[in-house]
Amino acid sequence: MRVANFNGGPGALPREVLEEAARDLLDWNGTGMSVMENSHRGPEVQAMAAEAEADFRALLGLNGDWAVIFCQGGASLQFAMIPLNFAGPGGRCDYINTGLWSTKAFKEARICGANPRLAASSEDDDFTHIPEVFDFDPEAKYVYITSNNTVRGTQWSRFPHNAPGPLVADMSSELLSRPLDLRPFGLIYGGAQKNIGPAGLTVVAIRRELADKARLDVPSMLSYPVYIKNQSMYNTPPVWSLYVSGLTFKWLLNTVGGLNNMAALNQAKSDLLYQAIDDSQGYYRGTARPGSRSVMNVTYRLPGEELEKKFKKESQAAGLVGLGGHRSVGGLRASLYNAVTLDDVRRLVDFMAEFQRVNG
Amino acid sequence: MRVANFNGGPGALPREVLEEAARDLLDWNGTGMSVMENSHRGPEVQAMAAEAEADFRALLGLNGDWAVIFCQGGASLQFAMIPLNFAGPGGRCDYINTGLWSTKAFKEARICGANPRLAASSEDDDFTHIPEVFDFDPEAKYVYITSNNTVRGTQWSRFPHNAPGPLVADMSSELLSRPLDLRPFGLIYGGAQKNIGPAGLTVVAIRRELADKARLDVPSMLSYPVYIKNQSMYNTPPVWSLYVSGLTFKWLLNTVGGLNNMAALNQAKSDLLYQAIDDSQGYYRGTARPGSRSVMNVTYRLPGEELEKKFKKESQAAGLVGLGGHRSVGGLRASLYNAVTLDDVRRLVDFMAEFQRVNG
Repeated sequence: MRVANFNGGPGALPREVLEEAARDLLDWNGTGMSVMENSHRGPEVQAMAAEAEADFRALLGLNGDWAVIFCQGGASLQFAMIPLNFAGPGGRCDYINTGLWSTKAFKEARICGANPRLAASSEDDDFTHIPEVFDFDPEAKYVYITSNNTVRGTQWSRFPHNAPGPLVADMSSELLSRPLDLRPFGLIYGGAQKNIGPAGLTVVAIRRELADKARLDVPSMLSYPVYIKNQSMYNTPPVWSLYVSGLTFKWLLNTVGGLNNMAALNQAKSDLLYQAIDDSQGYYRGTARPGSRSVMNVTYRLPGEELEKKFKKESQAAGLVGLGGHRSVGGLRASLYNAVTLDDVRRLVDFMAEFQRVNG
Repeated sequence: MRVANFNGGPGALPREVLEEAARDLLDWNGTGMSVMENSHRGPEVQAMAAEAEADFRALLGLNGDWAVIFCQGGASLQFAMIPLNFAGPGGRCDYINTGLWSTKAFKEARICGANPRLAASSEDDDFTHIPEVFDFDPEAKYVYITSNNTVRGTQWSRFPHNAPGPLVADMSSELLSRPLDLRPFGLIYGGAQKNIGPAGLTVVAIRRELADKARLDVPSMLSYPVYIKNQSMYNTPPVWSLYVSGLTFKWLLNTVGGLNNMAALNQAKSDLLYQAIDDSQGYYRGTARPGSRSVMNVTYRLPGEELEKKFKKESQAAGLVGLGGHRSVGGLRASLYNAVTLDDVRRLVDFMAEFQRVNG
């Protein structure tokens, strides 16, 4: 029996996508082989990859000004690629620190020899809000943000338009969950394992004019121009992850009907859950400030860690899985990625009401 | 209908492995989720990863002197990681050039700022043999080799035991195809997409005493000590690729019965094909020198490119796929990875005899 999956990532995938992947596992696309056994240079995989790129572009409205590439290594490899390509030794770059992942990105920029600087941080507020005032370095090569903070449950609703350089955004836990005004961005990326597909793939969209400025003294597998020039096939790409991600893009386009519909559904899901939290008379307490609340990751607490433990155990037994907070902060977290259904959230909200009635 | 898959990589996977993966795709291990939707920090995936590591160790006889890690980025990322970790800026290291992939590794060492040097090369012989005489640099931090050359169809049968530093070996297209005397090696690795599992995973075994010497000024996702310290979960690993690879390890242990059995079967497969080539009275011509022939990748030519085109087309139509040579050299190539059956090779040999009869 399938459970309601609130995992923070890897997270839920659409049932229809999994069913198609299972059906075609031994014989994909009439090739007499699994997609995993096909050559990445063969016409079938080439066509599949091209279609995945085209569908991703269609979903976000990425025109020819943008290159779309498929990397490996997750966000953590992007943490290194970004400063290596665009800052270089001693190169100045601004970071806005909104939690664990931007802290890691900042530190990695240092490891890579760049000279990163904090343009804003919500650390003194325990990362419970998204900053609105920025101290930009006019010489910054780029401004780095994490658009949705999986751990703390905060999300940018409006992006800064007065940055001195292009915005570079880790969108791992929200990419394709809503439409995007692309204007302030130079590069956006997301690890697949939240809203897109299996772990092992990172989707990156990068403005060609930014890519043209990339440094060339960078290892090949960390060089954006190498990926662009070779259409993400400098070496063997993670074909399976790309394939399943392509199925998800089709699901978003054809079953969901695009990112406006997806955003409306995601909003309805998170509204339902936040409402339940806010209506609980303080029994459930959201940890993010209301204006900064994430539509993707709803973080909250109960009155006491013992109750939280009980909640996690009993919800798991009720088929609601993955509700523990990130190991670095504890508490509870419901991740409402695209493939989580409104019905899943209704089941969670009902469970929460019953849990409060019994334990409140 | 499943075809006989002679692809150079990604290549054939065992049918039993694919059937198990398909069966469990929507509900793995009683979790009510696909393995791809499970948290990598959860007990089920943790146990799966630990078991995969233990089985890999058992297959190769890797004891506690060795760390086993799972990376992304394929061999091409190892090309950078090796010099960055073990040579550093200007650091001396020896390379033995036996074809396309070692040439790439050598060039990448330069890009990464190391000072690589050729200790031997078979380039002047069009890479048709494995060198047996080496001009080692006594100061070399390591000696790099490609143990099986997928493109040229050559393979090391005996490894040098007099190298000044540990051997570092790209075994992508032969890892787990035969048992290994580990003594001369400091690091061995393989991209999964030949004998192991889906593209997107690289399995690395590294002596702990070598890992302890790694430089620490390396991006986190390129640092061997970071992978070792975090048991390959510094960030989200490619869970699906690891899972399927784990199934393949079990298949090798339990169905095949270990690497001695696997090696015997692989030898029988390649003997059958080389015999057919050698018995064709020059119609089929092997490109690798007999003493350097690969058990994994059998490269050969026909009398003329038109015949080769015809051969590829007609073999494909007969359900024998992937027989074209690497795009850099042309000709024909049959890759006989672990999951290719003796029966597949019999079909190929029969097809070759019939093709010669009609077109000879």
